[in-house]
Amino acid sequence: MNVGLLGFGTVGSHFYLLAQQQPGVKVKAVLSRRPRPEVSCLVTADVARILSDPDIDTVVEAMGGLHPAYEYITAAMEAGKHVITANKQVVCTYYNELLALAEKTGVALRCTAAVGGGIPWLTSLRRAARMDKMVSVEGIVNGTTNFMLSAMVRRGASFADALHEAQLLGYAEADPSADVEGYDARRKLVLSANLAFGVSLMEEDIPCVGITNIQPRDVAVVRDKGLTFKLMAYACREARGISAYVAPVLVQQHTTEANVEDTGNILTLVGEHIGRQSFLGAGAGGWPTASNVLADCLAVAAGERGYYTRDCTPCFVKNELLDGQWFYRFKGEYYFRQCTAEAAFSTYAVHLMEDPEALMAKVR
Amino acid sequence: MNVGLLGFGTVGSHFYLLAQQQPGVKVKAVLSRRPRPEVSCLVTADVARILSDPDIDTVVEAMGGLHPAYEYITAAMEAGKHVITANKQVVCTYYNELLALAEKTGVALRCTAAVGGGIPWLTSLRRAARMDKMVSVEGIVNGTTNFMLSAMVRRGASFADALHEAQLLGYAEADPSADVEGYDARRKLVLSANLAFGVSLMEEDIPCVGITNIQPRDVAVVRDKGLTFKLMAYACREARGISAYVAPVLVQQHTTEANVEDTGNILTLVGEHIGRQSFLGAGAGGWPTASNVLADCLAVAAGERGYYTRDCTPCFVKNELLDGQWFYRFKGEYYFRQCTAEAAFSTYAVHLMEDPEALMAKVR
Repeated sequence: MNVGLLGFGTVGSHFYLLAQQQPGVKVKAVLSRRPRPEVSCLVTADVARILSDPDIDTVVEAMGGLHPAYEYITAAMEAGKHVITANKQVVCTYYNELLALAEKTGVALRCTAAVGGGIPWLTSLRRAARMDKMVSVEGIVNGTTNFMLSAMVRRGASFADALHEAQLLGYAEADPSADVEGYDARRKLVLSANLAFGVSLMEEDIPCVGITNIQPRDVAVVRDKGLTFKLMAYACREARGISAYVAPVLVQQHTTEANVEDTGNILTLVGEHIGRQSFLGAGAGGWPTASNVLADCLAVAAGERGYYTRDCTPCFVKNELLDGQWFYRFKGEYYFRQCTAEAAFSTYAVHLMEDPEALMAKVR
Repeated sequence: MNVGLLGFGTVGSHFYLLAQQQPGVKVKAVLSRRPRPEVSCLVTADVARILSDPDIDTVVEAMGGLHPAYEYITAAMEAGKHVITANKQVVCTYYNELLALAEKTGVALRCTAAVGGGIPWLTSLRRAARMDKMVSVEGIVNGTTNFMLSAMVRRGASFADALHEAQLLGYAEADPSADVEGYDARRKLVLSANLAFGVSLMEEDIPCVGITNIQPRDVAVVRDKGLTFKLMAYACREARGISAYVAPVLVQQHTTEANVEDTGNILTLVGEHIGRQSFLGAGAGGWPTASNVLADCLAVAAGERGYYTRDCTPCFVKNELLDGQWFYRFKGEYYFRQCTAEAAFSTYAVHLMEDPEALMAKVR
């Protein structure tokens, strides 16, 4: 397999090093604006030199962001090259377009590293969904917010302090909104739910509450009840559609979820027959993420194609059947309320209008 | 894929039902001593009718036990049929013979369901070991003993009561020694370590202590220290060989391992680059186990072969570098001792001669 590697940041550079250990995977060219003296193959700032090279059969996109990643990916597929990416945003946003193009061109499209870093989640989910009817998928899928919540719970750090620390350590970006508002988790949920249920969900349809409104006092209040905050992404199959949300969830302190600390991730599937299976590991980081990119390369080299298929149903999110207990802080007071997820999120939207620091969390 | 199914017990019958949902997998014949009116294909007590049927390309062995499972498996391979089995005992005992035969005949040999029931463990481990150097593998791999320990810890049940309950519920066999003495866990450890480290370990080389000597008083004593008993299988790569053992381990009550309850399993790999990944799920049961057998069928149908290879090194177990703290009960008194695993197990053997109820556990 001859690879054209687009991007040489954290994921790209670690992939380059890992690939050197694999006899079957040869990086032939790297797209990089900067010179890379440490790279022994062609380094170019001109993507056309990679996309027009007939020797390159596979493009690894490790640039991130929507553009020009989308344009490069589609050009690579049009040129008959397999595409492997860790870019959840581009796959999520252009899901239908990319699947249609993969089908038309017959190339592989894989993005295992897009969810759960180095955890073999999407491949395991694909495997389970082929054999069993999936009931639900859920997890702690954003390492940045989990690191921040760990700091807030263990050391009583404020949101601002936890964010600052995460930024210093390189876990959070200068603009942290994709992480702290839950958008990154929501994209990973879409990629998981689409595969689990054979649907095509729209990101914007899924209610999404991040962790920005969690205050030290909230953490102390729930700790006294034996609970702790985790930012969870959840989707389940209902009779009339898919229910899904991203929100802080209060889990019992002794549970497996509560003990996923720092930048760790946990992903759980529930199948009608196989029951509950969870997958834990590093949700980010150069080595783990690059290892899933490399695993995709090996899978493609072995003849596998993508796990997503075009026979997916466009599907609206219906949270009106998903009943449960919810926890609110509104104007400084705490409330519990038993209602559907739909009602919970609309109440929260109303609260937010009156008290922009309103907090909500699902109670497990 | 046309399957000859050997055995129609828990795993076999569930596999039969699951396979009916898969267009690509057709069970053509079932080996069973009893008539099976619920089965629509050929049911025969004569294995030769299955092994000599040229239409059958794959044999699923779900009988368990060493004999005649081994003879049927080798006959199937000699006849050019792929073999899929959930039988850890036969693969473990005849590891070198079966691998050599698979290589000679060019057929697939897979046993994903042999470790971790429905958890995609061996396949994930294979995937990780291809990309990264494995440092260690470990886990709670025996559902029967974990169920019993859960009963002993949560309800203060005695070993005998817990065993009785497990037998009533069908989790333990009339002769429970393979489970409670740790031999089942040790076989699963061999299958995991062989794959992780590219070695061929001998079962008998691995020190193995079960849970038979754990008494209610021990459970209470360690609970007061914030610890709980789990039967763990562990293997790691050392400079001069593989260290490995099966023994009760004292884990902190808040850890992921401590919270694997009842018949649940957890399997963990640590890779040099990808770090720690854990896989949790039902470690036994008809549906989960059958789903892994079916997943193996789908993998073989897609052109995959076995994950074990013959380029493995026969390897002795060396526990002389594996340092740690150990907990003993000897003649009614409790001791902690810092020493190598090798020293710990020899001390325990001496204790056992003097006090047959001596207890040992690794302290995490």
